[in-house]
Amino acid sequence: MSDNAANDDVQKPLLGTLLHRGVYRIVMQRPERMNALSSEMMTALSAELAKAAEDPEVRVVLLGAEGTVFCAGHDLKELTAARAEADGGKATYERIMRQCSDLMQQIVRLPKPVVSVVTGLATAAGCQLVASCDLAIATDTATFCTPGVNIGLFCSTPMVALSRNVAPKQAMEMLLTGESIDASTAKDFGLINRIVPQDYLEQVVQKYAEVIASKSSRTLKIGKDAFYRQIEMPLAEAYEFAAQTMVENMMAKDAEEGIAAFLQKRKPEWTDS
Amino acid sequence: MSDNAANDDVQKPLLGTLLHRGVYRIVMQRPERMNALSSEMMTALSAELAKAAEDPEVRVVLLGAEGTVFCAGHDLKELTAARAEADGGKATYERIMRQCSDLMQQIVRLPKPVVSVVTGLATAAGCQLVASCDLAIATDTATFCTPGVNIGLFCSTPMVALSRNVAPKQAMEMLLTGESIDASTAKDFGLINRIVPQDYLEQVVQKYAEVIASKSSRTLKIGKDAFYRQIEMPLAEAYEFAAQTMVENMMAKDAEEGIAAFLQKRKPEWTDS
Amino acid sequence: MSDNAANDDVQKPLLGTLLHRGVYRIVMQRPERMNALSSEMMTALSAELAKAAEDPEVRVVLLGAEGTVFCAGHDLKELTAARAEADGGKATYERIMRQCSDLMQQIVRLPKPVVSVVTGLATAAGCQLVASCDLAIATDTATFCTPGVNIGLFCSTPMVALSRNVAPKQAMEMLLTGESIDASTAKDFGLINRIVPQDYLEQVVQKYAEVIASKSSRTLKIGKDAFYRQIEMPLAEAYEFAAQTMVENMMAKDAEEGIAAFLQKRKPEWTDS
Repeated sequence: MSDNAANDDVQKPLLGTLLHRGVYRIVMQRPERMNALSSEMMTALSAELAKAAEDPEVRVVLLGAEGTVFCAGHDLKELTAARAEADGGKATYERIMRQCSDLMQQIVRLPKPVVSVVTGLATAAGCQLVASCDLAIATDTATFCTPGVNIGLFCSTPMVALSRNVAPKQAMEMLLTGESIDASTAKDFGLINRIVPQDYLEQVVQKYAEVIASKSSRTLKIGKDAFYRQIEMPLAEAYEFAAQTMVENMMAKDAEEGIAAFLQKRKPEWTDS
Repeated sequence: MSDNAANDDVQKPLLGTLLHRGVYRIVMQRPERMNALSSEMMTALSAELAKAAEDPEVRVVLLGAEGTVFCAGHDLKELTAARAEADGGKATYERIMRQCSDLMQQIVRLPKPVVSVVTGLATAAGCQLVASCDLAIATDTATFCTPGVNIGLFCSTPMVALSRNVAPKQAMEMLLTGESIDASTAKDFGLINRIVPQDYLEQVVQKYAEVIASKSSRTLKIGKDAFYRQIEMPLAEAYEFAAQTMVENMMAKDAEEGIAAFLQKRKPEWTDS
Repeated sequence: MSDNAANDDVQKPLLGTLLHRGVYRIVMQRPERMNALSSEMMTALSAELAKAAEDPEVRVVLLGAEGTVFCAGHDLKELTAARAEADGGKATYERIMRQCSDLMQQIVRLPKPVVSVVTGLATAAGCQLVASCDLAIATDTATFCTPGVNIGLFCSTPMVALSRNVAPKQAMEMLLTGESIDASTAKDFGLINRIVPQDYLEQVVQKYAEVIASKSSRTLKIGKDAFYRQIEMPLAEAYEFAAQTMVENMMAKDAEEGIAAFLQKRKPEWTDS
């Protein structure tokens, strides 16, 4: 369990963590605040992700939350309090928006797969968090929305992630109406990968993550990094880059071991190198 | 109702318009010509859109059509007539294709949401019109196609909009075979948002549009503009831009009002500023 | 039937070919080697595609395979054998990866539509082959995967094509878990266009291809080329380019004939010019 010293009005740390068989769970534990992305929460998440990136025991990261709200997005009380500042809050907003964008990109750049586990409402930057993960699993009661338009604050940063996950008209409908979509619609849209009944969630998610954790960490790192790089390139350039990535991957120990094991019909033994 | 002075062989104006509760309907009224995008029709549409952009009473635009053909695309008789010109029509085609591309981009750049309401066949540049709108609602009898390939004229400009709405193989099938897809398939592909039975269309569309019209115009403008800008940027640049957009949005009056109203559990009162 | 002189341990040529009514079938005939993309197979495929591009009788290309494996991707024995080379295989891997990327881009750039016909497992570079074709038809028993991660070799080049066909989270799940998707899921994802029962496959595919073969070759060439070019451009640039493409297309004989035939309600007679 991680802890956060600055947080003394409640006893539970902001985030709970658990490492089991290479799967590192990070759980947001502020259900009474709808797991809002306060500066404090974002700092805590970023620190945990950095730790997960470094720790060789961690092979896959799960990102979940306690309560019926997965994450309510920015902390509106924190944003409103900043209006009293001399510049009307501008400097604070710049800092918070940058912190949030950095956090989302930290997930994308993390050398290990990150899977969001959504058990309730994921709204605004909370929906962005889901969209920013490599994979997402949700219960059939999970819902998703980008309702900033209802409070005069368009979900402009969430839409960066959302519009890279779902088709333009689908993203536009969520952004312009502010209405929620259910888990089934989110799956159809490509925002989440799988829907699991609440009762089976724990075991399904753990098993799903262990499948990925059983791969070579080196291979996962090469592949995830290459995925997000090549997707922004024109086709010819993407092939040039990916072909080079394949060659480097072929020269790594785990590819030699993996291919040899496959041809010899045995299980590979990764050295993650 | 707008009118078009040059058009004296028929009595009805090319476009009917109606403003109700912030929702501006523009209806193509040439069913006997399958609402083809003649130069005249494009000029009329462009003028109405420009008016809608300026008019502070207009908060959302609906684009519909009379008859069983929503829009048949370019006016083939007009195109064919130009072949008699000294250059074989080239200058005319350049003018018409530019006019059409400008019209489609005018929709994308319009500072207010544009929703197409499709009650029949949307073909070629007519399908492009649907794809170019921010949102689209259709009756269950609507159909969509890009059949230029059948007349030797590949739907190259329609595909610019189409291929930014639907997956490549789905777009390619429509473009290479020229075959129609029904409303249900169009929804699966992401080309339209909702399917509504004809009998309920009027009231559903009006209500749907009013939901959007109830938001701050300033917020919608910021968000729509940012959407189409950021979608063309690499991820890091998109976040840089969107974070800045969020800060500017936060400093606007309607965000202050909207967030305050939310925290005070009351309805916001927009000043659209 | 094409032949391959270097291949003398088996009697059948690597590829079977058949031209019927403008539809050119290329069939991989190494089921006992799971139609792996050995250097030899890639050279043969590339030669056939080049022939198809040149031959005016060929209007559409079908790419199929014998056996229950459509294509197993790279030839792992060939890759492993190269480890004995002085540089550990690096030069060979560079050559093979480049050859493979060139082959995939040859399909994209081919001036005629290419349809993959998938009757079994399409895995790794075999799945890439499907993704690289303009269209894809599969039987209901076809399956698709990118399981490189299981052998320590992330499917980095396959993902270039895959991630341009399906949504990011869907691609990521295939790449990170290595698990297969069935034909129905592949259709939902946009990786294939149609699913046909095995018993009807031959006739459906032939008819489907003949629909496309009945179009003007000139028009198909203009359109396919423009599709892949414009999809990589920002919107304004794409419209500039596509509008110019439309003008050039209008000035071609087949557009004049096609539009005239349409207005005269008769069948067009293409000269493919």
